[in-house]
Amino acid sequence: MPLLPRALELVMAELGKLPGIGRRSAERMAFALLNAGQDRCEALEKSIGRLIEEVGICPQCGFFTDDGVCPIDADAHRDRTLLCVVEDAMDVVAFERAGGYRGLYHVLGGVLSPLKGVSPEDLRIALLFERLEHADSRIEEVILATSPSVEGDATAVYLAREMAALGLRITRLGRGLPMGGSLEHADGGTLRMAFEGRRSMD
Amino acid sequence: MPLLPRALELVMAELGKLPGIGRRSAERMAFALLNAGQDRCEALEKSIGRLIEEVGICPQCGFFTDDGVCPIDADAHRDRTLLCVVEDAMDVVAFERAGGYRGLYHVLGGVLSPLKGVSPEDLRIALLFERLEHADSRIEEVILATSPSVEGDATAVYLAREMAALGLRITRLGRGLPMGGSLEHADGGTLRMAFEGRRSMD
Repeated sequence: MPLLPRALELVMAELGKLPGIGRRSAERMAFALLNAGQDRCEALEKSIGRLIEEVGICPQCGFFTDDGVCPIDADAHRDRTLLCVVEDAMDVVAFERAGGYRGLYHVLGGVLSPLKGVSPEDLRIALLFERLEHADSRIEEVILATSPSVEGDATAVYLAREMAALGLRITRLGRGLPMGGSLEHADGGTLRMAFEGRRSMD
Repeated sequence: MPLLPRALELVMAELGKLPGIGRRSAERMAFALLNAGQDRCEALEKSIGRLIEEVGICPQCGFFTDDGVCPIDADAHRDRTLLCVVEDAMDVVAFERAGGYRGLYHVLGGVLSPLKGVSPEDLRIALLFERLEHADSRIEEVILATSPSVEGDATAVYLAREMAALGLRITRLGRGLPMGGSLEHADGGTLRMAFEGRRSMD
């Protein structure tokens, strides 16, 4: 006879599928939910129920939206000459939290990966080109902000090649030492990139 | 206009109330749920809905149960002369996972805390004494396994005093260096307890 009730094991199994949640974390969360009582369980239950129902995808950039175009695309104060291409919506949140960038975004929804069977048709790439080639487009620079990984780089190279004929400025995020990082903890790849990307102090 | 859809913020807020889940973890979990799609969201939603509905509390020991008496109390092979008193159900799981103990448990549902307004009536203490004083009781030893904290100790002292007249063996868990721990990382309180609890090597 198993130690824990079936319903408890079930919640633990579902929570355990989420990123960063191991068996122990899932257990602590499930126990906490049980102890928190019916109201808290119902609140979480309902909020998850509303998630898929209410959260939409912006038809232009692929970011999340309550309804119609997302708040970034709808914001008249954003710089419409800059387009930052990212892998997923989390990246948009990270950039917005960091602040500084005032252009628009385009969410690919992943990276190209022959190994995982992800080809250009699986990503929001056709929509990206529609956007770039649209008669109303004021985009002058495309920042390819895919992650600094093999697949992220390959995706950026693919996109840059496809965009070459559009006459846009195409850039990639700077590489080097992270802020606050110490030299001795940086890996070799980062150090090499930091050397290559060195700038004159002026 | 907020960056994230309201429904997403809501899930993040609810997940963020769980232990060990900060704002960033809640965000990652909520995004993952959205990306995982309707089926996964519904599975989690349903499992949480069943939690309060289906998980019961064992009328004897206070541990979780599917129905009626919990699997530990129902197990005819457990040693009914030993009763281990713990703060909450998580502790039962921890002991069962560690293995070795074959007696029964009693879940208090917390510790005494005048500061937080937790008095004996708020815990499963009356039920504990009912159990100890029951005509059918075969309990010979009560292990007070509340946590090694000020409140845990105070609760154990209170219970030991109340039990004094029952003629039972009353014990407390051993204190000292944790397994695999190194001396230099142990705090002063642990080292002092380890000294006090030293045993002759025979």
